[in-house]
Amino acid sequence: MLDARHAILFEPVTIGPKVLPNRFYQVPHASGFGSHKPLTQAAFRGIKAEGGWGGVCVEYAPVSADADEAPHVAANLRDDRDAAALRLTADAIHRHGSLAGMELYHGGNSSKNVASRHARIAPTAATASIDWGSAAREMTLDDISRVQADFVAGARLARDAGFDIVYVYGAHGYLLTQFLSTWSNRRTDAYGGNLAGRARFALETLEMVRTAVGDDCAIATRICVDGRRGVKGVLIEQMLEFVRLADPLVDLFDVTVGSWPEDSGTSRYYPEGHQLPWTGRVREATAKPIVGVGRYTNPDQMAAVIRSGAFDLIGAARPAIADPFLPRKIHEGRLADIRECTGANVCIMKEEAFGHVGCIQNATAGEEYRRGWHPERFDPTPEPGRAILVVGAGPAGMECAMVLGRRGFDAVHLVEAEDEIGGRLRWTRRLPTLGDWGRITDWRRTQLDQLPNVEVITGRRLSAADVRDYGASIVIVATGSRWSGDGTQPERSRPISLPAGTSEALTPERIMMGERPAGQRVAVYDVDGYYVGPGIAELLAAEGYEVCLVTPEPVVSPISDDTLEGPMLRQHLHDVGVAMQVGITVLERTPDGIGGETEYGDPWSLDVDDLVLVTHQVPTDDLYRALVADPQALSAAGIDAVHLIGDAVSPRWISESVFDGHRLAREIDLPDPTFPAAVLRDQPA
Amino acid sequence: MLDARHAILFEPVTIGPKVLPNRFYQVPHASGFGSHKPLTQAAFRGIKAEGGWGGVCVEYAPVSADADEAPHVAANLRDDRDAAALRLTADAIHRHGSLAGMELYHGGNSSKNVASRHARIAPTAATASIDWGSAAREMTLDDISRVQADFVAGARLARDAGFDIVYVYGAHGYLLTQFLSTWSNRRTDAYGGNLAGRARFALETLEMVRTAVGDDCAIATRICVDGRRGVKGVLIEQMLEFVRLADPLVDLFDVTVGSWPEDSGTSRYYPEGHQLPWTGRVREATAKPIVGVGRYTNPDQMAAVIRSGAFDLIGAARPAIADPFLPRKIHEGRLADIRECTGANVCIMKEEAFGHVGCIQNATAGEEYRRGWHPERFDPTPEPGRAILVVGAGPAGMECAMVLGRRGFDAVHLVEAEDEIGGRLRWTRRLPTLGDWGRITDWRRTQLDQLPNVEVITGRRLSAADVRDYGASIVIVATGSRWSGDGTQPERSRPISLPAGTSEALTPERIMMGERPAGQRVAVYDVDGYYVGPGIAELLAAEGYEVCLVTPEPVVSPISDDTLEGPMLRQHLHDVGVAMQVGITVLERTPDGIGGETEYGDPWSLDVDDLVLVTHQVPTDDLYRALVADPQALSAAGIDAVHLIGDAVSPRWISESVFDGHRLAREIDLPDPTFPAAVLRDQPA
Repeated sequence: MLDARHAILFEPVTIGPKVLPNRFYQVPHASGFGSHKPLTQAAFRGIKAEGGWGGVCVEYAPVSADADEAPHVAANLRDDRDAAALRLTADAIHRHGSLAGMELYHGGNSSKNVASRHARIAPTAATASIDWGSAAREMTLDDISRVQADFVAGARLARDAGFDIVYVYGAHGYLLTQFLSTWSNRRTDAYGGNLAGRARFALETLEMVRTAVGDDCAIATRICVDGRRGVKGVLIEQMLEFVRLADPLVDLFDVTVGSWPEDSGTSRYYPEGHQLPWTGRVREATAKPIVGVGRYTNPDQMAAVIRSGAFDLIGAARPAIADPFLPRKIHEGRLADIRECTGANVCIMKEEAFGHVGCIQNATAGEEYRRGWHPERFDPTPEPGRAILVVGAGPAGMECAMVLGRRGFDAVHLVEAEDEIGGRLRWTRRLPTLGDWGRITDWRRTQLDQLPNVEVITGRRLSAADVRDYGASIVIVATGSRWSGDGTQPERSRPISLPAGTSEALTPERIMMGERPAGQRVAVYDVDGYYVGPGIAELLAAEGYEVCLVTPEPVVSPISDDTLEGPMLRQHLHDVGVAMQVGITVLERTPDGIGGETEYGDPWSLDVDDLVLVTHQVPTDDLYRALVADPQALSAAGIDAVHLIGDAVSPRWISESVFDGHRLAREIDLPDPTFPAAVLRDQPA
Repeated sequence: MLDARHAILFEPVTIGPKVLPNRFYQVPHASGFGSHKPLTQAAFRGIKAEGGWGGVCVEYAPVSADADEAPHVAANLRDDRDAAALRLTADAIHRHGSLAGMELYHGGNSSKNVASRHARIAPTAATASIDWGSAAREMTLDDISRVQADFVAGARLARDAGFDIVYVYGAHGYLLTQFLSTWSNRRTDAYGGNLAGRARFALETLEMVRTAVGDDCAIATRICVDGRRGVKGVLIEQMLEFVRLADPLVDLFDVTVGSWPEDSGTSRYYPEGHQLPWTGRVREATAKPIVGVGRYTNPDQMAAVIRSGAFDLIGAARPAIADPFLPRKIHEGRLADIRECTGANVCIMKEEAFGHVGCIQNATAGEEYRRGWHPERFDPTPEPGRAILVVGAGPAGMECAMVLGRRGFDAVHLVEAEDEIGGRLRWTRRLPTLGDWGRITDWRRTQLDQLPNVEVITGRRLSAADVRDYGASIVIVATGSRWSGDGTQPERSRPISLPAGTSEALTPERIMMGERPAGQRVAVYDVDGYYVGPGIAELLAAEGYEVCLVTPEPVVSPISDDTLEGPMLRQHLHDVGVAMQVGITVLERTPDGIGGETEYGDPWSLDVDDLVLVTHQVPTDDLYRALVADPQALSAAGIDAVHLIGDAVSPRWISESVFDGHRLAREIDLPDPTFPAAVLRDQPA
């Protein structure tokens, strides 16, 4: 039941000619689906409307030929074919009574245009780099008219495709911001000079779009308000002035801060609501509806923000991916059921680098169409009587047991050898800055506790004989993996040679179980390239060790660049005193330290007292191997099937272990669920 | 007329049940078009058949769900929809009497599978890294059967789609090589152990594919033969033994060396035919037809390779992109017309990083469908009487004048201020390792000389008045750009402060025109990130200067990573004694050297005697601005239009300047050719 404190979140809000049914608003964000995977896009966004988001937007929609973002995927909106593809999404959103938003876009100097072979355009050419094939050229007056006409054409296509809210996108440093900035706009004509001049392009565009579709659609703009560096140097005072100028033309202000990595800051470096000191000031300049984000998952905090008057709508991208049903759960008073965003930016990595959004918390994100998965609905099993034993309560095991429980199996036992569930998350969440990743465990703990047909048993390590005697007819082994300190280097022919008598160097797990280096000076050798090596390095540095993070990669933690964390992670390590050496392959532990070679094959050495290896993980699959080695014993024990999931199959990112456990639980009734069932491939509209 | 020396190249060659009409063979290579841009793919490959390539292949075709290459584009061949899309390409190739080839593929441990969410698979898990979401798991016998069945299904789809040649892809370190390698295959079952065991997967797959489609299609395999490190440690002796084992099952051996960056080695670091010492040895093991590559553009060399018995077919990827009509030109004895590949790997950069192949030499590559451009055919202009003056004979101007000449304008004058044509290529080709880029100028010089309606005039610098007096009715300004040493840093708010009285630091052009640093110790500050900074640094180092290449980028020359040159470029700079400092933003020239800050904001300095700035280029557009500033004078001079192209619009890669000159010449009869005409967007099959 809806708590009265949260009722304010379910008030309708009028934006121009439209009415949002509540204050929950999925702001525009990329998915990888654009306009070329229309059924996938429609299913992904439609689920959010079903889950109670009163406004649901798609990603940025380039309107011009020279707003080409390839290889990144966008919802191009340039012809009837695009509009027909995107109409499916508008329809899917409307089916649940929500409003559909379209973010019309031109990147200006940020649009790569390599595939399209257009020169990039910018208000002024002078300060443009040649990162992508061509430096930007200065926009002519013809260019300005052309791009404005493209915005109008895009707006008409959006309106005709059924979209209710049309954005003129102005945040994150794209074309509109480039015009507003004195850094990037040094024009001496009517589109440059003072703020009124620099704002002219945006204001004219807004007015033209409003004239074209303003009777049918709400007009939104997305802007950056920031008092530190701003974006391209546009500080909040100027943006507030711009808001005043744009106020008569805008029905909804969508407010952000800083660059994208800051606006979508991860939980490692930004708390929830970190934007509010800046975004909260927009109210000074307008009485129109305002939406802002803050990675909010707590309805008390949301209600407080609305009550404060700062925002009219709670914007969300990542929290809506992690839990499409967040609004409904609040409405039903099911607060403990909210699957809270961890702020890990796995969604962004998967979407930006691989073209298909996913989530570390929500295994169904991006799987709505191709696998037919719904985040809250689960097909009842046709054979509920089969007793299931899941061995190992890490990410894969927790998720698998939970989904099996929801599918209605009479008895699911999740048995964990350690005293608490979570698997590797038990220690991952204790790494500096990674506390919020604990939500992966905490939410599953809460869900498992609610399932009367699932029993969670901790502190019980099962042997193969124990498993056979357990009484289950299906056994799922989810025993995870462990870091190996044996010196093996993935994809390299030579292992690290360790001193005679040493079987293994220190590993992340040994550190997290309490072992400490033998001496003050420690090298952490990171071949993994993600969060574990930096986490261990920071932890040891905080304890006073003199730490050098050594990696064969050209930068520290390259995977963190894909989660938008790279530069801030490296700055953070630097600030806490971790030394870093890149391009180094370690080859031996010597009496004085470690030796190896540089990327150029030159000898290299470092004097250290101890070495932590973050090189590779090995599956803990002994139990599985012992079980399948004796099929007769299994048969005699009444065990019909033994499955292996997660890291115990092969070590992987947490998001993928959660997915693997989820998938097996969904597909366990298939004749052979070992290999994932074929997925639907998207069809053109 | 065909030279008798080259007649051997036009002999038909039987491969299994098929006959190639000649010995010219476009080996499989990526384009960015895959199966999802079917009309673009068909046009791109069809042109090559028209140009005389007797065999034309598409790119790698993943056959399994866990051979997912996203975000890279492949010609998936997994269902009838893919086959229908690719049939358009087979038809386009057949239209010109050539054979169509399909390269069936599984990457094993190299397939990223992040979008598909499959675990990666490999013969053995032990040495697998977790670069992309999951470490590889060991293939079960079920996996082996499944993947083999997928190859068979792919072969049937290829056959039914009209393809004549079906590959089982085994080179470049993918799944077949992983089975052959003792590094990556440590299996103890029938698919591991000795070579016969490690070859079993490949041999069985070849046999199954042969059984399925061998009566209808030629069976090819692509392998790596290398005696240095091999690929994954598979050395040539083992590969020759594999060839002997596979001989009865294979109709065509496609042979490569090393990893992809070596096999597609650029002209900077690899001469033509560098693979032959290894690929030439395959003949020892088989009498079956062999195809190999070598970036061959010289028919004498091609004929010699055939006569030597090393190869039966001349394979080409890049030379066929640079000149689809290379075989026909040889057949017609038009050797000087061959547009020779420069070996710059712009094709690979554009295809891999941006999803659409292009070429530094051939402006029509990748534009066959979307712009309707043919590399050898040009629409006659409807108004040939308009006299055209092109000012500036750099990449854009040369290309533009040439295409205008081919379009039949009565009089085209190309006027260059310097004593030789080439623009920035005049000095670029003199940078160490970049000599082959001179082909861009040389080919155009040859072509321009053949066009009676185009006059090339050098050593004549035109003022605005000169242009008005010239007698042209159309003026095209292609005056290029110049490097600026004024300290401006693109996309950074702070310029580099230079000592009082110094207006500009040294630039690449000043160095190439003969100026030298004031002292022994020189910093080259590279914000450009491509070939100019490293080229200048190497040149100075070779002359005995003590050179440090400083860059704000996290690696030296990141763009070279996209051309596959990065690691070898950096190794090369290291080997010739160039010091490198990354992550450094230079902020000032001090009395003792240079000062700035690290990526972490810490102060940084370097003692040097002089500084070369490779920061940014500025358009040389004074002439254009002077002309358009006085429309009445233009009108009085009878000039109807003044156009600006290439670097004079905005500095850009050479490939894009060539493209821009080409485009304007194609579109100059349009009402307003300033902005490129709209392109066709590919339609699903």
